[in-house]
Amino acid sequence: MGKKLKKYSQGEPLAPWREKIHEVIFEADTPAGKTFDAVLIAAITLSVIAVMLDSVETIKYEYGHILDILEWGFTFLFLVEYILRLISVRKPLLYATSFLGVVDLLSILPSFVSLFYTGAETLLVIRVLRVLRVFRVFKLAEYLGEADYLMRALRSSRRKIAVFLYTVFIFVVIFGSIMYLVEGEDSGFTSIPKAVYWAIITLTTVGYGDIVPQTHLGQMIASTVMIMGYAIIAVPTGIYSTELAKVYKQSITNNACINCGEEGHDEDAIFCKFCGEKL
Amino acid sequence: MGKKLKKYSQGEPLAPWREKIHEVIFEADTPAGKTFDAVLIAAITLSVIAVMLDSVETIKYEYGHILDILEWGFTFLFLVEYILRLISVRKPLLYATSFLGVVDLLSILPSFVSLFYTGAETLLVIRVLRVLRVFRVFKLAEYLGEADYLMRALRSSRRKIAVFLYTVFIFVVIFGSIMYLVEGEDSGFTSIPKAVYWAIITLTTVGYGDIVPQTHLGQMIASTVMIMGYAIIAVPTGIYSTELAKVYKQSITNNACINCGEEGHDEDAIFCKFCGEKL
Amino acid sequence: MGKKLKKYSQGEPLAPWREKIHEVIFEADTPAGKTFDAVLIAAITLSVIAVMLDSVETIKYEYGHILDILEWGFTFLFLVEYILRLISVRKPLLYATSFLGVVDLLSILPSFVSLFYTGAETLLVIRVLRVLRVFRVFKLAEYLGEADYLMRALRSSRRKIAVFLYTVFIFVVIFGSIMYLVEGEDSGFTSIPKAVYWAIITLTTVGYGDIVPQTHLGQMIASTVMIMGYAIIAVPTGIYSTELAKVYKQSITNNACINCGEEGHDEDAIFCKFCGEKL
Amino acid sequence: MGKKLKKYSQGEPLAPWREKIHEVIFEADTPAGKTFDAVLIAAITLSVIAVMLDSVETIKYEYGHILDILEWGFTFLFLVEYILRLISVRKPLLYATSFLGVVDLLSILPSFVSLFYTGAETLLVIRVLRVLRVFRVFKLAEYLGEADYLMRALRSSRRKIAVFLYTVFIFVVIFGSIMYLVEGEDSGFTSIPKAVYWAIITLTTVGYGDIVPQTHLGQMIASTVMIMGYAIIAVPTGIYSTELAKVYKQSITNNACINCGEEGHDEDAIFCKFCGEKL
Repeated sequence: MGKKLKKYSQGEPLAPWREKIHEVIFEADTPAGKTFDAVLIAAITLSVIAVMLDSVETIKYEYGHILDILEWGFTFLFLVEYILRLISVRKPLLYATSFLGVVDLLSILPSFVSLFYTGAETLLVIRVLRVLRVFRVFKLAEYLGEADYLMRALRSSRRKIAVFLYTVFIFVVIFGSIMYLVEGEDSGFTSIPKAVYWAIITLTTVGYGDIVPQTHLGQMIASTVMIMGYAIIAVPTGIYSTELAKVYKQSITNNACINCGEEGHDEDAIFCKFCGEKL
Repeated sequence: MGKKLKKYSQGEPLAPWREKIHEVIFEADTPAGKTFDAVLIAAITLSVIAVMLDSVETIKYEYGHILDILEWGFTFLFLVEYILRLISVRKPLLYATSFLGVVDLLSILPSFVSLFYTGAETLLVIRVLRVLRVFRVFKLAEYLGEADYLMRALRSSRRKIAVFLYTVFIFVVIFGSIMYLVEGEDSGFTSIPKAVYWAIITLTTVGYGDIVPQTHLGQMIASTVMIMGYAIIAVPTGIYSTELAKVYKQSITNNACINCGEEGHDEDAIFCKFCGEKL
Repeated sequence: MGKKLKKYSQGEPLAPWREKIHEVIFEADTPAGKTFDAVLIAAITLSVIAVMLDSVETIKYEYGHILDILEWGFTFLFLVEYILRLISVRKPLLYATSFLGVVDLLSILPSFVSLFYTGAETLLVIRVLRVLRVFRVFKLAEYLGEADYLMRALRSSRRKIAVFLYTVFIFVVIFGSIMYLVEGEDSGFTSIPKAVYWAIITLTTVGYGDIVPQTHLGQMIASTVMIMGYAIIAVPTGIYSTELAKVYKQSITNNACINCGEEGHDEDAIFCKFCGEKL
Repeated sequence: MGKKLKKYSQGEPLAPWREKIHEVIFEADTPAGKTFDAVLIAAITLSVIAVMLDSVETIKYEYGHILDILEWGFTFLFLVEYILRLISVRKPLLYATSFLGVVDLLSILPSFVSLFYTGAETLLVIRVLRVLRVFRVFKLAEYLGEADYLMRALRSSRRKIAVFLYTVFIFVVIFGSIMYLVEGEDSGFTSIPKAVYWAIITLTTVGYGDIVPQTHLGQMIASTVMIMGYAIIAVPTGIYSTELAKVYKQSITNNACINCGEEGHDEDAIFCKFCGEKL
């Protein structure tokens, strides 16, 4: 994201006042920027809670007008913020069509749409999507590294996880189909998709209990699926642990000493631990 | 698998046109081979979904003829593919009797059998088994390494996992039996196998809730089983993580010794650990 | 904690008899101190069990007077201990306002309050809070290092876990809202908060089964949430494993630099990484 | 265990025929010993299954006499084995009073007791305890190392796990008590022990669904407990992974080269990887 923002600031320079706004809104390491981020996170969280409460019948009935006022207050706030963002970037269109730009717009629009249109529930859910704006929190300097670290390990274990998920898919399809045959409609295994749904509930150890095997054979197969699910959780866990360790190891070994050329220094190292030269 | 395929191509060479078919169907690193694999995966997935939908009463009633057409289309496709596979390998019998060869046949046969025989449900489930053909996806060059990596760690932790599963078995049999004594038939613990089934549901943290302890003593024992299940999940996870890390460490130095040809030397090895030759 | 206790003993020395009490109550490495700790743990555990049993209708009815006697016995014991603690520290106010000091007081007060006031249930729960005193067990020399070790890894993975929890929050809000739209009130998804509650139950693989999707689309989305929850458990596990390994690695070389006093050097370090001085 | 057995064979030598029996029954690395172990495992497993089936009403009614014959067959087999064990060890009393010796006796006695006494269910459960004899399987040479490896890591993480379990105990007591206050008897939280039972069901992600919160506040607290349980599973997993890695690391670094003194050789190394000298 840091790179993307740099791209915005290339080309002709912004007017000083727009530069100032940009600094507050997009940068996170100045005091003003940090305050802005903190206020934004709080506003997003509160506004999402307000939207969620708006869907509770009893609360809407009693506090509906307060929630309305809050909603319009937040909408106005986000509108101002959106306009400021458009003003302070060099390429407004690029921002407006980016993922977070669309999410920013989605946090304003539904309130206005609700003036003309009355599909209350759908609009509520669209308004809830503004929770995605919380991803901006990961822009905060102190979180950026951590999130990036977790994402890098996730990205490099992408294929292993795909292999794992495919295997899980094959397991639940086969075991689901067998249970459809063994248990049949009387136990709630009315179709293969339903039986596969049961297999997913069981293998992931969620275990709702809305569909359960009734026959002895069915319960034996179910036991197998459970123990399988209990054991193979080790696979994604093992994959991710190993990748995280790798990413961590890479992060400490990338910088070599200019004096002795040795690598493997910690991130916080100032002097080479092998020859004492300043890094 | 790569090795197995090489075995097919030894001996007298295939005719050029059979060689060409072999390349497209069995190889994954040519453009044609990649396209073929992608189409095959899509066909398998779609056909499995079609079979699954075929078991849903309402869908079968309304869209039954479309599903029939799809099924025969896929059957024809898989039939052509099966014949091409038989033609393009040097030892057709070896292929036909291999695991994936039998699965390939199983994805064609049931449709023809259904013309004479009407055990609809059994045939449906056999047809679903074609989902196993997805394992072919792991033949794709970019996944082969990953799947192999996961399998190697699984294979080398085989015995540790066996010890773990045996211990789990002993736990559920003993705790199940005790609960059969403590709770008795009134709470649904009608027999020891049923009580063991409950212990598996509880230890694996699935927790259907179809059989639950009613007495105070029973609930105390159940609590013990739950916390035990919650804690010992650490065992398979720890085993697999450690094995993955080992396999990874070995894989970064798969340079073979020039003297004895053995692999698996550590990163910092200067001499072969098996024959003492300089690496 | 060791450091905090040292702070108490700075300044003017305590009278010898107060010094002696201090040694028994606060220190854990003398025989008398160890015996005191063991007795204390047993008393806390027994008294918590007594409080818990006091809330069971049938037990209270039959053994109420025995529980009353036990409660007053433990209260008297804890009162004596509290007074001894106040006497044997140099700054009683500092102790009395510390976290464990307040907990110590909370384990005595409710019994006396119950003489005048009759909000039985609230008082019971406050009395149960004395279970927090068990944290004193971690003061025991042999556990101190272990608990500290686990806490250090937890502290250094603080931000990564915050990123993870925020992501989980975003997931459950979005999936909950979608399910509210898809399932509606008939399936029990009466409001967005309720649907988010369902999403938490499902993602964490708890799976009560009190709210379950009824429509086909809802069950498909639920399957996605389950598999997601089953797979992303790998993230906190991976984070914590990696941090524990790091902390362990650091702990094996907690030799401080003689020049700058900084700790945390690697095993193979020859020079201090902070000041360049030879170790 | 190997050490214990050696102790038996010290002192005056056994008669050759007793020596021979000892070898077959107690040793696992001769062909005869391996065959004996395999037969024993099979006999134990089958006899446990027979006992379990004996508790199923319908099966007992129809196949009761077959199960009776099987039971007496296995009892006779185990009796012969027990006598042979007593004969072939130097100190029969030491064997008879050891843990596995008592288990061996427990697998014979109940059948004879059942001739005079008719507490069918209790005897069934005692007979099931013979499943513990399966632990003898870990005597088999190829499993001994693996089981020992897992146990060593478990033993060295003993204290960390105790700290973790204590923390879980404090959590469930406090959250259970709060829920008892918040939810009350109407939702099934009839007493604090019951509420703690609910907290254990929820924190361990078992989630039976027999007791579920009904109030909004209760559901919010429950959500906290679920996410807590979902996240802190990372703690035992992390602990055990780290310990296993430590134990593994120790096992490869114990043997030093006699030529260059370097350590860190793999278990299968024949030559030093640093200087090429035979190890």
